[in-house]
Amino acid sequence: MGIGVFDSGIGGLTVFQALREALPAAETLIYLGDTARVPYGTKSDETVIRYALEGARFLQRRGIKALVIACNTMSAVALPALEREVRLPVVGVIGPGAEAACRVTRTRAIGVIGTAATVKSGAYARAIAFHLADARVVARACPLFVPLAEEGWVDNDVARAAAAAYLGDLASQGIDTLVLGCTHYPLLERVIRETVGPGVTLVDSARATARVVRARLEERGLLATGAGGGDQFIVTDSPERFREVGSRFLGGPIARLEQIDIQG
Amino acid sequence: MGIGVFDSGIGGLTVFQALREALPAAETLIYLGDTARVPYGTKSDETVIRYALEGARFLQRRGIKALVIACNTMSAVALPALEREVRLPVVGVIGPGAEAACRVTRTRAIGVIGTAATVKSGAYARAIAFHLADARVVARACPLFVPLAEEGWVDNDVARAAAAAYLGDLASQGIDTLVLGCTHYPLLERVIRETVGPGVTLVDSARATARVVRARLEERGLLATGAGGGDQFIVTDSPERFREVGSRFLGGPIARLEQIDIQG
Repeated sequence: MGIGVFDSGIGGLTVFQALREALPAAETLIYLGDTARVPYGTKSDETVIRYALEGARFLQRRGIKALVIACNTMSAVALPALEREVRLPVVGVIGPGAEAACRVTRTRAIGVIGTAATVKSGAYARAIAFHLADARVVARACPLFVPLAEEGWVDNDVARAAAAAYLGDLASQGIDTLVLGCTHYPLLERVIRETVGPGVTLVDSARATARVVRARLEERGLLATGAGGGDQFIVTDSPERFREVGSRFLGGPIARLEQIDIQG
Repeated sequence: MGIGVFDSGIGGLTVFQALREALPAAETLIYLGDTARVPYGTKSDETVIRYALEGARFLQRRGIKALVIACNTMSAVALPALEREVRLPVVGVIGPGAEAACRVTRTRAIGVIGTAATVKSGAYARAIAFHLADARVVARACPLFVPLAEEGWVDNDVARAAAAAYLGDLASQGIDTLVLGCTHYPLLERVIRETVGPGVTLVDSARATARVVRARLEERGLLATGAGGGDQFIVTDSPERFREVGSRFLGGPIARLEQIDIQG
């Protein structure tokens, strides 16, 4: 049985890739991107939870032994609902990302950037407080970063002006760590780094999440052995754009890609 | 019976408002915004057509005498499918916008800006050629303009940098008319005007569409008389954000607003 990797669209491929590096070749990953309804980060909690449950049910019908929620918004808003619904290990990206930030910080002042829904949820602040009770969290929604990354505008005047508008005052807030709380944001890493300055360490949740997934599988004796079945990719909009952008993300062609209707 | 006004989200309220001004008070408008699946402009034709048919069927079940497609992407991609499905007058924004541009132009060189899906469809170029066979059309997708408008960044450094990147070379292409081929773009009118220069007339389809709707209703004897029933607003995501942004669009509170599940 494979591991489900569920994202609102294409950005979760950064988590897919980190999982691929952290897990044995015998492990099969089944990636679901809800490209017909992306983005989730601008939508209400109620709608994000409904979409999350529909996707999780679909992946369970396919047969999975664990579910990784690659999307920060879904992890922030829908993880409790998913854990109630899915009788399998469920790992989101918020907890691992928060824990990684707590290991890195010296000043105990941590910045978090994400979608409007992720920031509004307060999920990172709660997860950080769980590890470092006296941490100070400065959270900031950066809604334009997703369309900038999808436009490929990651290092031009527009990206720099947007980063200055969102993050220009963060350096003066004493933070020494910044969580990139959305799967798209690592694509803008250079501009973000220039804006917040060299004194701030950027934390990407993807690798931290992959380590947690491996540990959870190991402790339950679920890690695969033998030959892998080959990864699968499933999208809800037509696959052309995913194939094109996805192979850029992964540095190679996407072999097994299918389109499904997730509703119902 | 009312007039259905169908949009992918909130931007179609500009068309709603133009209709409200062009039509008698006796006319009831039923606005449907598919806020749970917005945006349409980055999705495939196949998915946009599916969503368009689902929304049109919903509005027909509510009882409408005409259907206005306020969204440029849906008008560009799904109008033939809607006309086959819906046994009512259907008016999109592309034809009226193209006709208005053809009346304005002197050089017969017309610029069109819109979503990726609208530009890829070539619908404006075909509609313009129908009115002015020798017109030259320069079309340009501006995907970041929608999130900029939704962020309220319509007159800052980010908006200006994005306009320069998309439109900086348009002035040198000899166009004297520019169609704002997306309902959100009028919000960025000032920055667009600065970028393309004073020699270019901007055309917004909303008013042209409202005139066509009125004429179609009159010629079929469908124009309402007597007392109006009060407009209705229907959304697919939870209504809070629509209520807030929508009342800013309309300059007053939105009274009758409900949420529905459009699927199926």
